[in-house]
Amino acid sequence: MRTQVVIIGSGPSGLLLGQLLTGAGIDNVILDRVGKHYILGRVRAGVLEEGMVGLLRAAGAADRMDREGLPHDGFSLAFDGRDHRIDLYGLTAKRVMVYGQTEVTSDLMERREATGGLTIYEAASIAPHGFDTSSPYVTYDKGGTTHRIDCDFIAGCDGYHGVSRRSVPQDALKTFERVYPFGWLGILADIPPVSHELIYANHPRGFALCSMRSQTRSRYYIQCPLDEKIENWSDDRFYDELRRRLPAEHAENLVTGPSFEKSIAPLRSFVAEPMRFGTLFLVGDAAHIVPPTGAKGLNLAASDVHYLFEGLRDYYADRSTAGIDNYSARALKRVWRAVRFSWSMTVMMHRFPDTGEFGQKIQEAELDYLVSSQAASTALAENYVGLPY
Amino acid sequence: MRTQVVIIGSGPSGLLLGQLLTGAGIDNVILDRVGKHYILGRVRAGVLEEGMVGLLRAAGAADRMDREGLPHDGFSLAFDGRDHRIDLYGLTAKRVMVYGQTEVTSDLMERREATGGLTIYEAASIAPHGFDTSSPYVTYDKGGTTHRIDCDFIAGCDGYHGVSRRSVPQDALKTFERVYPFGWLGILADIPPVSHELIYANHPRGFALCSMRSQTRSRYYIQCPLDEKIENWSDDRFYDELRRRLPAEHAENLVTGPSFEKSIAPLRSFVAEPMRFGTLFLVGDAAHIVPPTGAKGLNLAASDVHYLFEGLRDYYADRSTAGIDNYSARALKRVWRAVRFSWSMTVMMHRFPDTGEFGQKIQEAELDYLVSSQAASTALAENYVGLPY
Repeated sequence: MRTQVVIIGSGPSGLLLGQLLTGAGIDNVILDRVGKHYILGRVRAGVLEEGMVGLLRAAGAADRMDREGLPHDGFSLAFDGRDHRIDLYGLTAKRVMVYGQTEVTSDLMERREATGGLTIYEAASIAPHGFDTSSPYVTYDKGGTTHRIDCDFIAGCDGYHGVSRRSVPQDALKTFERVYPFGWLGILADIPPVSHELIYANHPRGFALCSMRSQTRSRYYIQCPLDEKIENWSDDRFYDELRRRLPAEHAENLVTGPSFEKSIAPLRSFVAEPMRFGTLFLVGDAAHIVPPTGAKGLNLAASDVHYLFEGLRDYYADRSTAGIDNYSARALKRVWRAVRFSWSMTVMMHRFPDTGEFGQKIQEAELDYLVSSQAASTALAENYVGLPY
Repeated sequence: MRTQVVIIGSGPSGLLLGQLLTGAGIDNVILDRVGKHYILGRVRAGVLEEGMVGLLRAAGAADRMDREGLPHDGFSLAFDGRDHRIDLYGLTAKRVMVYGQTEVTSDLMERREATGGLTIYEAASIAPHGFDTSSPYVTYDKGGTTHRIDCDFIAGCDGYHGVSRRSVPQDALKTFERVYPFGWLGILADIPPVSHELIYANHPRGFALCSMRSQTRSRYYIQCPLDEKIENWSDDRFYDELRRRLPAEHAENLVTGPSFEKSIAPLRSFVAEPMRFGTLFLVGDAAHIVPPTGAKGLNLAASDVHYLFEGLRDYYADRSTAGIDNYSARALKRVWRAVRFSWSMTVMMHRFPDTGEFGQKIQEAELDYLVSSQAASTALAENYVGLPY
C-alpha cells in the first residue's frame, strides 16, 4: 500500500491530524496497535483551549462539542480558606471549553468514518523505517501477515510509550525530565459538579481539583503519595478528604455519589528534542508529557498538530519545505512554554514533602499576590486559555 | 533617662524611623552596640524603591540622594546568550533609585546630628525589658555603668543577629526559613559599570549580577558554591568568570580594575511571625531576611518603618492604637510578598545543584515567556519597583 502520510496512533492528535490532512486533500492512513473500544475507554483530559476548539471545527468534528460542551469563562483558585475567581474571559477575552477527551476522540472517529478515512486498528508490531530518507515506510502485522505502507512522511502520534520515539537513534535525542513526588487520585462520578466552574485548591493537606465532564458528571482529584493504594480509598474516604481541602462554601455543597472510575496517576514533566527526524515527526505525548495541573497535555498535542499540518499542507501545495523544516523549533517553543506553565502551576498548588512550612507560606504568598495583581492574574489566565499558536 | 521610643540599631531602618519620629515631634533615642564607623563600613544594598525614596525625603535626608543617585528606568535580563530589557518605567510608571545603603545611612546620620537626635553608639549588652507591659525599658552598659532608658515603645531595628528578636520568648515566635545551596561572591571596584542599567544574568555556569553604586563604581556578583574560598579568587579570575556568564555584547564591554572589597555572602529566606510583642516591634532584618536577588531587603525594612511610624504617629496624635495593633499584620502582608518575589527571582536566576538540565531549560522557558508577555513583564516590574505600601 502507498499513502502520503502514515499516522501512528489513533488518539485525538493522530485523528485530528488525519482529518486536517484529509480536508486538505492529503492522503493518510492511521495505524493503531489497539482497538477502537480500548481507545475510547481511556479517561483523560477535558479542558480545551480555543486553539484546539478551532482545529476541531476545521476538522469538521465540532458539532457535538459546540452543542454539548461547556464554555467556561473562569475558574476558582482556593487557598488559605478563601476562594478567588480568575476571570479568564475578562482578562484575556478568551474562554476554554470543557469537553472530555473521550468525546473528542469519538467525534473525530465518527468524522473519519464519514469521510472514508482509513484507520487500521489492532495492527501489531508497528515499526517506522527509512525515515532518514525521503522514502520511508511503516510495517505492521495483522491477520498473520506483515504489511508495508510506503509514504512520504510518518507522524508519530502514539504517545509516550509508543514506538515512534523509541525508533529514533538514542544519541539523536536529548531528553529532559522531572518526576514529581506525588500522584493524583481521581474519581469520575455521575453527580452534579460542586461548582459550575473548576476549582483548583491549595491546602496544607495537599492539592485538590474539582473538575467536570458535564453538568451531571464530576471529575474530582486529590493529591496523594506515590505509594498510595487505590483499594484503601472508598468513595466515602475520598469525599471526606476532598471536603477537607476545599473552602467551607464549596465543601458544604459537595454532592456525593458512587464513583465509576477511580485511579492514581503519577505526575511528570518530560520533553524530547528535537521533534523531527528526517521524514518522521513526533507529535504530542510521543515527544512531551506535562503534569495535568493546568490542563495542557491535550492542548499541546493539538498545537503540534497545527504546526505539522501547516508544514505538510505547504509542502503538498507548493513543495515548500519551510514549514516541515521549522516544525520542531516552532512546536518546541510552545511546548516549553506549556511545560513551564504546567510545572509552575504544579509547584504552586501541591504540597511538597521537602519544602516544609516555608514552602506552604510561599505558595500562599504566591496565590495571594496572584489574585491581588491584575498583571499576575492576566499572566496566569493567558497561559490557562492557551498562548497563541 | 526617659524617652517615648527607644530604637535598637542605628542602621538605615533605625535611623529612618528615628528621623520620621523626630519630624512628627516624637522623642526617640537610638542605641547601637557598635560605632558609627563600623556601621558605615558595611557594604550592602543599593537599589531603592520609590516608596523608600519618599520616606527618605520625608525624613529630610534625601538631598544628596536626589543630586547624586541614579534613577533607573529599567534593567536587563540576560539568558541563553540574549539580553532583554525590562522597561520598568514603561510598564509601571515607576523607577528605582540606585544609591548605596552606606550613603543612605551616612545621610540619615548627618540629618540626625543636624536635628539634635540622640544616638548612643558602642552601647554594650543592650537589653529590652518589660515589653509585655506599657512601661518597657532598655538597659545597656557604657563607661563602666549600666544605664536604663524608660519608654513607651521599643523598636527592634537591630538585624537578624540583634538582641530584639532573641529577647522574645521562643514559643511566641513562629519562624520560616529556606537556605539556598549557593552564595554570592561580590566585588566592589572603581570602574565604570559595564552597562548603564543593572544586568541580571542566568547562565548554565551560574547567576551573575552587574550592579553599580555610581557611574564610576561597579558592584559585580557571581553565584558560587557555599564552600568557595575567597582567597582562590583573584580579580582576574573573577572578571574571567563574570565575562563567561554575560552575553557577548556585555562581556566585550567589561572594563576591569582592582577590587577594593571582595566577599562571599550566603543566600537565605527567613521570616519570624508576629512582628509585634506588646510594646516591642521588630523591624526589617530583625524579623525577616531575603536573598539579595531583586534588591528587596532594605526596601522591606523601609516599608516596616513606614507602617510602624504611621502606627506610632497616630498613637501620639490621638491615642489611637489601631495602627500599632495592625502593624504586624500589615507589615507581614507586604513582607511575604517581597519574600515570595525574592525567592522566585532567586529560583529563576540561579543554577541549582539538584534540578539538572530540566531545571536549566525551565528557567530559560520562564525567562523566554516573561520577556514575551506584557502581563508577565508587568508582574515582574511591579514587584521590582516595589508593591504599594
